[in-house]
Amino acid sequence: MITSQSKTHISSYLTSFIFFLTLFFASVQTSAAAGKVYNWRLAYTWPDDFPLFTNPVKSVAKYAKELSNGRLNITFEGATTHKKPLGIFDMVQSKEFEMGHSAGFYWQNKDVNTAILTTIPFGMIAQERYSWFYEGGGKELTQKVYQKYGLQVFPAGNVGMQMGGWFKEKISSLEDLKGLKMRIPGLGGDVMKAVGVIPTNIPSSELYGALKSGSLDAVEWANPGIDLSMKLHDQAKFYYTGWQEPSAELQFLVNQEAYESLPKELQSVLEASMKLAAFEASISFNHANVIQYKELLSKHPDVQVTAFPSKITRSLANETRSKLKQLMLSEDPLTKQIISSQLNYMKDARQWTRLGVQAYLNNSISIDVVN
Amino acid sequence: MITSQSKTHISSYLTSFIFFLTLFFASVQTSAAAGKVYNWRLAYTWPDDFPLFTNPVKSVAKYAKELSNGRLNITFEGATTHKKPLGIFDMVQSKEFEMGHSAGFYWQNKDVNTAILTTIPFGMIAQERYSWFYEGGGKELTQKVYQKYGLQVFPAGNVGMQMGGWFKEKISSLEDLKGLKMRIPGLGGDVMKAVGVIPTNIPSSELYGALKSGSLDAVEWANPGIDLSMKLHDQAKFYYTGWQEPSAELQFLVNQEAYESLPKELQSVLEASMKLAAFEASISFNHANVIQYKELLSKHPDVQVTAFPSKITRSLANETRSKLKQLMLSEDPLTKQIISSQLNYMKDARQWTRLGVQAYLNNSISIDVVN
Repeated sequence: MITSQSKTHISSYLTSFIFFLTLFFASVQTSAAAGKVYNWRLAYTWPDDFPLFTNPVKSVAKYAKELSNGRLNITFEGATTHKKPLGIFDMVQSKEFEMGHSAGFYWQNKDVNTAILTTIPFGMIAQERYSWFYEGGGKELTQKVYQKYGLQVFPAGNVGMQMGGWFKEKISSLEDLKGLKMRIPGLGGDVMKAVGVIPTNIPSSELYGALKSGSLDAVEWANPGIDLSMKLHDQAKFYYTGWQEPSAELQFLVNQEAYESLPKELQSVLEASMKLAAFEASISFNHANVIQYKELLSKHPDVQVTAFPSKITRSLANETRSKLKQLMLSEDPLTKQIISSQLNYMKDARQWTRLGVQAYLNNSISIDVVN
Repeated sequence: MITSQSKTHISSYLTSFIFFLTLFFASVQTSAAAGKVYNWRLAYTWPDDFPLFTNPVKSVAKYAKELSNGRLNITFEGATTHKKPLGIFDMVQSKEFEMGHSAGFYWQNKDVNTAILTTIPFGMIAQERYSWFYEGGGKELTQKVYQKYGLQVFPAGNVGMQMGGWFKEKISSLEDLKGLKMRIPGLGGDVMKAVGVIPTNIPSSELYGALKSGSLDAVEWANPGIDLSMKLHDQAKFYYTGWQEPSAELQFLVNQEAYESLPKELQSVLEASMKLAAFEASISFNHANVIQYKELLSKHPDVQVTAFPSKITRSLANETRSKLKQLMLSEDPLTKQIISSQLNYMKDARQWTRLGVQAYLNNSISIDVVN
């Protein structure tokens, strides 16, 4: 039997039940909103077994997970799987992947600014470049270039000073360069073309085979830390010092919409993770060069490591100046701004580099008391 | 009137109330535990108005807050307030402050290893040092030195190549150095002492006054980016290139117990924040050098910027070797390990630096098409 009194009790009971249920679920919901997991996919240019280049990818995923308490979960896929090593720009733009890891000069045919932002022949070394990028206006110019494609871009590891490349034959004169089929991308490729080389860009996985079969006569790839694992020294015995990519910076590409869909605190986590990954990658590239150049000297004495004759270097510098002048006439006002910004900063930065690091290296005296 | 039926209702009502109250507070408590705020204090060596040195401090606090969603809250106090610029080690060790920002060679009198870990005269440049630290065993050795004092230590900004110092009189011979009162800390100070200088270390805020009053004849502080704001060029017109601190790294000190009291995810946040702050500080130091060296050249032509005569440099290198040999005989086996580790790594690293950056700088041709 239900009395009016017991009805009141039931009503109180229900009101109380609903009130606390509401409080409980509101509280659970707040935790859930704060805990929403974002699953992102990253595509990279490199094959899976390419440690120095895949390290920043693994590293950005590790940091994002750790610093977000598992809320920003980045999985990644290399060219071994997606089969589009040079398709990263498109796949991130279309949001097939939220982000990518690649190198800017691969998009030279879409927008030449991507190449001159990566590195300029005879341009800044890594230390100068980082100061230009973060404190000399470089970051803002870079963002301007990529934002029209709906992309954000961030540094992703500096490869350091690159070598001029592996050649099957000795290069003694400009004549020796004419007609050579060489893998060399970016502005360096354009400059080489101006002195008669036939430049091409093919994926890293095909370089060894192309040198071996003779479909390439020379390969510019990177520096000892990276090149040695590719066994290019088995096929080409002349290794020339660099002029074309003094500080190429790899890049993280992020789809703009995907970036904006992240809560602000996860945007901070993502940016911090990319910066940490880039810093660590730059250090690893240098360490690999230290170890592998030592290896090259001790294990491959048949390789001749040398500079191009100065006449060739002067020609390459002349052609670089012509190419830059021509680029500065571009319809896109950003092109002139990017070149001017870099050259102006470099002019000042190089004075300090010469007084600081260069003078120190040139005057240094060995203090080795161990060996 | 309370019937037995209504008693049952009240009892159900109370049970339900307590049940949901328990659920609600359990849920609130979980959020609170996940959200516990850690308030940390950081003491730094520098006065408050010392931007390049205080930047990493502000930066670590900003990142820690941002990446922890406000859960790791670091406030900081400079020497202007705590009045103990050279007391950071002690104040962090005693947990008066959970962490500190300073430079390792200030603790040379407690433990010489702190000085040889900061930088070695004629030693590694910044790029070489970072590779040694993170990938060549440097980090592990550094931790071993500080852990016996209950401290953790992390890189906190690389000052870059330092200058040999500001001298009131021109230095033409070793004779000119004898009896000079000079601010120069660390191993550089020991080496200068061996050639007759009277080295001292006084806080940065007192250097200008000491030069002016004549209680100092020379001041080694850092490089143009930092020195110019201290107006040392008003008091000393000879500015010599460096040999003694090619890559001094500032340090974050963290009390070991305080570190361990953080939940694991906040330890990750703290480490990431310090790494980001250190990276950004190194870039800012270089940028400041670019800007201020340009300023020095254009606004202060009365300052003579030059290298010591090579006879002096050779003597300084000889004394450095003697000092290192002597240190390697130390009772503390870590001392020998730290020196050997650095010199061995440098031997290999310098080969790559010479083939890469140095060859590039020495052979580079201007491509300036702007100015």
